[in-house]
Amino acid sequence: MEKLNIGIIGAGRIGRVHAETLARLPQAAPLVIADINQAAAEEVAHACGIPHVAGVDDIINSKGLHAVAICSSTDTHCELIVRAAEAGKHIFCEKPVDRTLSRIDTALAAVRKAGVKFQVGFNRRFDANFARVRHAVASGEIGTPHIMHIISRDPAPPPISYVKVSGGIFLDMMIHDFDMARFLIGDEVDEIYTVAGVRVDPQIGEAGDVDTAVVTLTFRNGVIATIDNNRKAVYGYDQRVEVFGSEGAVATANKYANEAVVSTSGHIRRDLPMHFFMDRYTESFANEMRAFVDAVLNDKPAPVGPEDGRIPVAMAIAARKSLDEHRPVKLSEVS
Amino acid sequence: MEKLNIGIIGAGRIGRVHAETLARLPQAAPLVIADINQAAAEEVAHACGIPHVAGVDDIINSKGLHAVAICSSTDTHCELIVRAAEAGKHIFCEKPVDRTLSRIDTALAAVRKAGVKFQVGFNRRFDANFARVRHAVASGEIGTPHIMHIISRDPAPPPISYVKVSGGIFLDMMIHDFDMARFLIGDEVDEIYTVAGVRVDPQIGEAGDVDTAVVTLTFRNGVIATIDNNRKAVYGYDQRVEVFGSEGAVATANKYANEAVVSTSGHIRRDLPMHFFMDRYTESFANEMRAFVDAVLNDKPAPVGPEDGRIPVAMAIAARKSLDEHRPVKLSEVS
Amino acid sequence: MEKLNIGIIGAGRIGRVHAETLARLPQAAPLVIADINQAAAEEVAHACGIPHVAGVDDIINSKGLHAVAICSSTDTHCELIVRAAEAGKHIFCEKPVDRTLSRIDTALAAVRKAGVKFQVGFNRRFDANFARVRHAVASGEIGTPHIMHIISRDPAPPPISYVKVSGGIFLDMMIHDFDMARFLIGDEVDEIYTVAGVRVDPQIGEAGDVDTAVVTLTFRNGVIATIDNNRKAVYGYDQRVEVFGSEGAVATANKYANEAVVSTSGHIRRDLPMHFFMDRYTESFANEMRAFVDAVLNDKPAPVGPEDGRIPVAMAIAARKSLDEHRPVKLSEVS
Amino acid sequence: MEKLNIGIIGAGRIGRVHAETLARLPQAAPLVIADINQAAAEEVAHACGIPHVAGVDDIINSKGLHAVAICSSTDTHCELIVRAAEAGKHIFCEKPVDRTLSRIDTALAAVRKAGVKFQVGFNRRFDANFARVRHAVASGEIGTPHIMHIISRDPAPPPISYVKVSGGIFLDMMIHDFDMARFLIGDEVDEIYTVAGVRVDPQIGEAGDVDTAVVTLTFRNGVIATIDNNRKAVYGYDQRVEVFGSEGAVATANKYANEAVVSTSGHIRRDLPMHFFMDRYTESFANEMRAFVDAVLNDKPAPVGPEDGRIPVAMAIAARKSLDEHRPVKLSEVS
Repeated sequence: MEKLNIGIIGAGRIGRVHAETLARLPQAAPLVIADINQAAAEEVAHACGIPHVAGVDDIINSKGLHAVAICSSTDTHCELIVRAAEAGKHIFCEKPVDRTLSRIDTALAAVRKAGVKFQVGFNRRFDANFARVRHAVASGEIGTPHIMHIISRDPAPPPISYVKVSGGIFLDMMIHDFDMARFLIGDEVDEIYTVAGVRVDPQIGEAGDVDTAVVTLTFRNGVIATIDNNRKAVYGYDQRVEVFGSEGAVATANKYANEAVVSTSGHIRRDLPMHFFMDRYTESFANEMRAFVDAVLNDKPAPVGPEDGRIPVAMAIAARKSLDEHRPVKLSEVS
Repeated sequence: MEKLNIGIIGAGRIGRVHAETLARLPQAAPLVIADINQAAAEEVAHACGIPHVAGVDDIINSKGLHAVAICSSTDTHCELIVRAAEAGKHIFCEKPVDRTLSRIDTALAAVRKAGVKFQVGFNRRFDANFARVRHAVASGEIGTPHIMHIISRDPAPPPISYVKVSGGIFLDMMIHDFDMARFLIGDEVDEIYTVAGVRVDPQIGEAGDVDTAVVTLTFRNGVIATIDNNRKAVYGYDQRVEVFGSEGAVATANKYANEAVVSTSGHIRRDLPMHFFMDRYTESFANEMRAFVDAVLNDKPAPVGPEDGRIPVAMAIAARKSLDEHRPVKLSEVS
Repeated sequence: MEKLNIGIIGAGRIGRVHAETLARLPQAAPLVIADINQAAAEEVAHACGIPHVAGVDDIINSKGLHAVAICSSTDTHCELIVRAAEAGKHIFCEKPVDRTLSRIDTALAAVRKAGVKFQVGFNRRFDANFARVRHAVASGEIGTPHIMHIISRDPAPPPISYVKVSGGIFLDMMIHDFDMARFLIGDEVDEIYTVAGVRVDPQIGEAGDVDTAVVTLTFRNGVIATIDNNRKAVYGYDQRVEVFGSEGAVATANKYANEAVVSTSGHIRRDLPMHFFMDRYTESFANEMRAFVDAVLNDKPAPVGPEDGRIPVAMAIAARKSLDEHRPVKLSEVS
Repeated sequence: MEKLNIGIIGAGRIGRVHAETLARLPQAAPLVIADINQAAAEEVAHACGIPHVAGVDDIINSKGLHAVAICSSTDTHCELIVRAAEAGKHIFCEKPVDRTLSRIDTALAAVRKAGVKFQVGFNRRFDANFARVRHAVASGEIGTPHIMHIISRDPAPPPISYVKVSGGIFLDMMIHDFDMARFLIGDEVDEIYTVAGVRVDPQIGEAGDVDTAVVTLTFRNGVIATIDNNRKAVYGYDQRVEVFGSEGAVATANKYANEAVVSTSGHIRRDLPMHFFMDRYTESFANEMRAFVDAVLNDKPAPVGPEDGRIPVAMAIAARKSLDEHRPVKLSEVS
């Protein structure tokens, strides 16, 4: 295979991002796109030069496609994974794979049985800042890691209608941070303890969710980590990590659209950090898709594999259980 | 009273710091100093121009003194507080007041009965960085606080001989951060959860202590805070806080001896932050003593009063209990 | 005109950059590319999906093209401008337009006579940092500007063979900064004074050029500016400006590939800033081409017009004259 | 000599600073202070515990004094230097020594004849930031220096009455930067070129002075430097330098009273840098006096010697001459 023929399922915000990347990639040919909203699929096809708009069945049954990118709503993921795997397609699937472990297990079993590549869309691993932190940990630049802090705050909460179907802050928002925690430390979590509350919007509480959470993770290797999530950072999208180890520490700052500093009679100031996750993570979205194409074409392991799709969901379930039961919860209790 | 006549008990490292401040303060007259090591007392007296070296009894019974600064070892504090209070002296006492709540209660009862001023030496409240953070919280500059992170790491562990008598990391080291947490948020803690381990030196574990700890605090007002303590940050003394609220966030960086940045073919770099707590907190030690002198001379409340001497000790005890019992502990369980 | 049909002359490094931008731009159709090196033209055509490779004459005479992008070597610019203008093509031309003012005047006269759009490739105006500085000046955010410093240092000198034909540091390298100076202040320079030397490589001196230069500009409006050029900054590409005014100052820092800071026992450090101008200015190259396409399609003035192609060349000539004659030189002496 | 007996002439702002340092220094005994304003001398004597207030003659003729600190107005310096030298006193003298070279030459001749120590009060050399920059240059950390920029801006202009007698911006304000330039590079200046104007206050122009100046220095060793002075930086006292060399660069940032950063919905901001030179340079004033006392007690060369008192004055005169004659001026023309 010299060029990856790929079909895209889902033409929403994230589907379009992946379509644009694939359209620019010499090693990939995005041949077809599907969406339950036909007009959306046609618009993305036109903008990205994708020659065909078709139905999901057509994509899955197409003989000419090597792979599919599943960018549809979370509740459709598992069924599509099973069908695509059975059809012998390599699979890129957006996060989360699903919100229940049993369904994920069924889907991943199909993937393993079919022997196809499977990559889940935890794009932040491909961000230059977090990749640099991982390098500092993996290379021994900061020695043996002891403590980690992940700060991950959104600029504004989603609509309440979305909150109600999102699976809650742990499955919807902190899942990225659970993946990040495993990725940065390179080990698995043993136990989780959650403190959380409703501070931003009482409606979020009425919907059974929280909007402010601090979760403590204890890794098998003894590293202690905290994850700090909040739904409303008025100054913008706040995405930072710090890892402290025996030989030093590594920490990232936020990304800014410019590096200009203005000195006035009142303050020394700069403009706000990037506000929208699509701007902040533009490059990481492109990088993850390039890595998927490369993994398939050159028969390498997918860099974010099946287990990476399952474990963060288990962590999210454990984090919620800890909050509900007001005690530390072993990951083994929910897995 | 125009000038505060004060005696100093203890001529060790911290006693000398306070002697130097008092010697330079026009509103104070450090007239006498005592230490079980007579030579140490004489050396400080000479260096600071303190006219007399005497015994502890002489200081406590002196008619000419308005106040005493108790800078002797922790195990002597409570007895000295009781005696000084009964002698009508205003009292500045180093932290921690004691390691057991019952002894603290006895000492503070004497203080209250005598009606003397009492200030405990949580100097960090008087540091420009932390004072600025408190201002941001108290003034509403960042809205209602939601989350706080305190990072407090020492450059190197103390000798094992000291660790054995220190009362443990929570009473010896994190006690500063417990005070800081209460000071910055302006509210009391309801519950504490501790994860900790021995990562720096196995001998610390053999002594029954830990050297790496992450403690989660839940405040009565709902603020969630973490405190991160480690005994060995190879890059120096690491003292930072961040408070996140409904209208923004405030965070402090470490203090450096210089602001020079060197660009080389390898890195962009700067010299390490201040390494030693006496350098890092020089100004705060002077500021706290000035505040004590001012409180006595002008009959103001001492800025760090009796309760501030007791509550952080209770928090330290609860943090250790949480570690031992592997569960969140209410502060009310130990108070 | 709904879509700009454009031909590209020159398939070197910068020609390829513009070809890639145009290929991704829905409003543009790069239909043909030419280069004296046929293979280079074919490679870019293939990579960017440009349907035709042709000769320069074919491009200039093509009825179907609205515009040309001149990305060939500097000595060919003026002739191509004249021919393209006479053929009624809108023109984007790389910097510098030429190294002699009389040839530039001839070319710009043809542009004016033909009434075509003309934009010169001073891409840095379209960089987010410098655009933000310009905004601070133009909006009055820093009051009336008084002083400006431009620092512009290359990571490594070009080959001596290139230095010999480059026209010298003022025409080859500082010309970007002359444009930047005019752009940021929004006014013209009255007088120039140069101090310079050979510090990096004696061969540069043997070639009649300098590699280290500090030029002082006096603007008509009284602003005083300095430009600092050096051919070898071992830590990477150094591109900063600072403008100081009556109500404040604005300054930019370099751009980095990541925002990670590593603390070790030796230093607090971060990785070097972006090293290569193609990485550093990626977005500005795309932005300037978008702006050109927009100017033609919507009949707006080109954002970097004919005068902007001429004046920086005059400034470079004056800067060299100042160095040779060891005195301040009025721009009017050379224009 | 175990302890330096010293008299202080001048009890103004800077005299008081030196009195306070000397009073705290175990190696020094400030025995007497004089001022034409007797009340001022008495106040400082009282505050610092200096036992005697006397007249200038008494100080100079006192058998018991080893040294004098001349902190009176500039016009009195040279006569006092001559008299103190003839009386065999070691001399610390505030900057500038005088505003005319011939008077300085007379004074320094007396110093050399008497063989006494002489130190001029260029305190900034003793600031941690600038000392670190000097270390980077002197140690070869940045290789051979090529270019230097000094930025030195006051928060607000002095009263016009002071401007009229100050000797002008070059002798009054930039003289510190002339000293800094020589100190940081460790070489002498060959030529000076000045561009300047009146931007802050027309009254400064009416008094024959300028308030905004950019001076270019060419050193004998080929280093090119710029000095940027302005009388009114609304954001505070701006004191930065950058030295660029063959192996890297070193740059300093301003000093701040705190390191807190506040993130709001409008900006990321911090409080202004230190505003007042007495706050910004507190430590350097103490350090320079300690160095003087050490030089005398231990018979070391004074760290800022007689030539350092003369050459910056010559540079100031050359800078003004360059402005007046609109041409580069060799330092040899005025020395």
